[in-house]
Amino acid sequence: MVRLDRLIEELVTANRILAREGVVDSFGHVSVRHPDNPQLYLLSCSRAPDCIENDDIMAFALDGAPVDARGRAPYLERFIHGALYEARPDVTSVVHNHSESVIPFGVTGRKIKPIFHLGAGIGKDVPVWDSHDHFGDTALLVESMEMGRDLAKLIGAGATALMRGHGATVASKSIRQAVFISVYLEVNARLQKQAMEMGEVKFLTAGEVDKVASRTGPYGINRAWENWCRRAGRSFEADEA
Amino acid sequence: MVRLDRLIEELVTANRILAREGVVDSFGHVSVRHPDNPQLYLLSCSRAPDCIENDDIMAFALDGAPVDARGRAPYLERFIHGALYEARPDVTSVVHNHSESVIPFGVTGRKIKPIFHLGAGIGKDVPVWDSHDHFGDTALLVESMEMGRDLAKLIGAGATALMRGHGATVASKSIRQAVFISVYLEVNARLQKQAMEMGEVKFLTAGEVDKVASRTGPYGINRAWENWCRRAGRSFEADEA
Amino acid sequence: MVRLDRLIEELVTANRILAREGVVDSFGHVSVRHPDNPQLYLLSCSRAPDCIENDDIMAFALDGAPVDARGRAPYLERFIHGALYEARPDVTSVVHNHSESVIPFGVTGRKIKPIFHLGAGIGKDVPVWDSHDHFGDTALLVESMEMGRDLAKLIGAGATALMRGHGATVASKSIRQAVFISVYLEVNARLQKQAMEMGEVKFLTAGEVDKVASRTGPYGINRAWENWCRRAGRSFEADEA
Amino acid sequence: MVRLDRLIEELVTANRILAREGVVDSFGHVSVRHPDNPQLYLLSCSRAPDCIENDDIMAFALDGAPVDARGRAPYLERFIHGALYEARPDVTSVVHNHSESVIPFGVTGRKIKPIFHLGAGIGKDVPVWDSHDHFGDTALLVESMEMGRDLAKLIGAGATALMRGHGATVASKSIRQAVFISVYLEVNARLQKQAMEMGEVKFLTAGEVDKVASRTGPYGINRAWENWCRRAGRSFEADEA
Repeated sequence: MVRLDRLIEELVTANRILAREGVVDSFGHVSVRHPDNPQLYLLSCSRAPDCIENDDIMAFALDGAPVDARGRAPYLERFIHGALYEARPDVTSVVHNHSESVIPFGVTGRKIKPIFHLGAGIGKDVPVWDSHDHFGDTALLVESMEMGRDLAKLIGAGATALMRGHGATVASKSIRQAVFISVYLEVNARLQKQAMEMGEVKFLTAGEVDKVASRTGPYGINRAWENWCRRAGRSFEADEA
Repeated sequence: MVRLDRLIEELVTANRILAREGVVDSFGHVSVRHPDNPQLYLLSCSRAPDCIENDDIMAFALDGAPVDARGRAPYLERFIHGALYEARPDVTSVVHNHSESVIPFGVTGRKIKPIFHLGAGIGKDVPVWDSHDHFGDTALLVESMEMGRDLAKLIGAGATALMRGHGATVASKSIRQAVFISVYLEVNARLQKQAMEMGEVKFLTAGEVDKVASRTGPYGINRAWENWCRRAGRSFEADEA
Repeated sequence: MVRLDRLIEELVTANRILAREGVVDSFGHVSVRHPDNPQLYLLSCSRAPDCIENDDIMAFALDGAPVDARGRAPYLERFIHGALYEARPDVTSVVHNHSESVIPFGVTGRKIKPIFHLGAGIGKDVPVWDSHDHFGDTALLVESMEMGRDLAKLIGAGATALMRGHGATVASKSIRQAVFISVYLEVNARLQKQAMEMGEVKFLTAGEVDKVASRTGPYGINRAWENWCRRAGRSFEADEA
Repeated sequence: MVRLDRLIEELVTANRILAREGVVDSFGHVSVRHPDNPQLYLLSCSRAPDCIENDDIMAFALDGAPVDARGRAPYLERFIHGALYEARPDVTSVVHNHSESVIPFGVTGRKIKPIFHLGAGIGKDVPVWDSHDHFGDTALLVESMEMGRDLAKLIGAGATALMRGHGATVASKSIRQAVFISVYLEVNARLQKQAMEMGEVKFLTAGEVDKVASRTGPYGINRAWENWCRRAGRSFEADEA
């Protein structure tokens, strides 16, 4: 129970950090798989990330059914989260956002690729999911498990996908890592656009991406987490909840 | 009377939000139709949006005549508001601004089009009004009902127009929706410029714009409004005034 | 004496505003002609604009000699100010800055021109002064009356000039107007670059620039001034000191 | 001892300034050579620059061995610092960062050159170090003296180098000067990219770079330092520690 409380605290912190670092604005969300039951996940009710309090965190079954809603309205797009937890036992945390620099890539088909070491976590291939391909004219929202599963299928074993005319989704093994990748996906996209305008870009080699990935762990991520907690006005614990 | 007080409070909040979110700087304004008399509208006296207090809100007849000025000087460009309320019974709130990213579109004739779901509210067509076409060399300000009506005519049944060498105007059915469209008109313009530099852009289809529009309501807008109130240091009420 | 105190207070406010609005960083300065003696001007000692206090304001003769230094070190580049007051009896205030968006124009010879009504105050022609033309390899600083006069000559009867590899200078009839033009010179440059990247730009016509100029007065400038005072944490007086 | 305490205080201030001015985010570091023993240098333990306190400052031998770790974990990349102090007796302070605007230059081979007087300190030539040239696929980090020496060799007698897919390193004769160059390396890169997009750029001549360099001293740097201390919430001393 104490463990669950700490995890909820960490999830609220993640929401505030994503807002403070400009990855989400009034929309976007982050979830974590339930520590006691892998068939559930924790996600806020429908609220802007920077406004979220502990009591806003709800539990959902993988199909998106709330466990104990108590009048709280869920996010329409929670199916992004459930579908990824269903397809990927290795995934513990999911971020969905409308991070600005990634959107131009998603609507032009230009591929985002790791341009500096901190961007290596996005993976060697960042696919683009276009809801129009299988679902035609929609409100561009992932509003069913069917759509969520289609997105999860495209992500496959990867960490990230862009969503055409919408944003991006990140899946990772911990809250901190999912937030870390989300922040640096945005930075990588911003730097990559600038570099592409200046000439031929030397991206990270496949071997470099692998080497960085094998080295990215709590040592580096906690350094960022402490800094982001400070900026977001949240208390920091070195050990992940 | 209580209802009017709440609406004035909401209008002051809208001014502060537009300033905080970078849609207006020292100039620009937002109005609302009077709830008890559709032939009047409420608008601040001539002051920067971030400085406005409740006592600055004045009532105007549609032709721009103040109801009870009490020494307060009106905005010169209030005719933008009156002309839209006159032409459009469905319009309840109007925003006029010099939002930075839209200005380059207005002076080059490049069309702004919805590039992501949050930009759908700007509509399928965002026309550009050039005061020079009918009024020749002016100070570029809408300083008469004749000019206001010319602008309103171009907007027609739409929600937005750019103004060449000047800014933009947004007309909508509520204060919150007018602010929401104004914020995302700016974001959409910023993202669209970036995307155009990267290649052929896949904009939202007409069907997608319709689908998003049919889904955009208090559920989403209030989520942003709560966040913007927090950022602007204003109290939030879930129900629109 | 009271009048002088108010003017010094206004000059400190101008420094803080220029810093807050991003026109100056740790460098750059603003001066005002002495109200009792047109052969003197007031300017801070050598300090970053955002740090300046009333006691830092010194009086200088037009040739740059301090009236009563009391151990305070002057800015090396004060000759920019003196040379403009010497050449232009109509000038009451001068701003020198390294405002970021103007620098790329100054090193490429692209001309800045008014692109929206708030940019009209920069004038129809913004010349570029290159210290190398008459002075060869220097530290790019205006460190003598000879250099100051060369710059003032290029400005002629105008309000602005860019300085190659250095920044910009603005001369106007009041502190508030000089600050206003400095702020919007930066915004105009930023918007113009974006617009040039998008296609053929329709700048303000000469007639429009004249019309805007004839309309720009305390009514508009004070609205900005109140807002900037609020943002800079300075008290606001509607009447210029 | 008092002198060492003051230097540690100055080093913490430098960390906070680099964070506040956007030169470092959660990563990057700044060191200073030990005032009593040139075979040692002072550098924080592994922490984000904006979080660093006096007790985080550790002493290291030039080969990177901590003198008295007391459980504090060092930065992996401390070899950048040691290798420069080893190769360059004239160097007293080193900054390593991932400053955003320099990265696109490092991955495209476009050369950064001084574009305005405040950028002259970066030097006439800013070489790009590509770890891949001599070390193949790595995590792009400088994780040994061998790699540090390879970087130091490329820097030679210069002040700066970019690191492909990683960031930049600055070496200078004092903490304040190293920070000053780091800040303006970022600004110069940002302005240079904009200028290159606008046309042929007139960079500073070699003679101008020399003239500026000969004039850049405590007079100018302290002006910036006071401003940066104020912005970072640190107390300012005019004399360098």
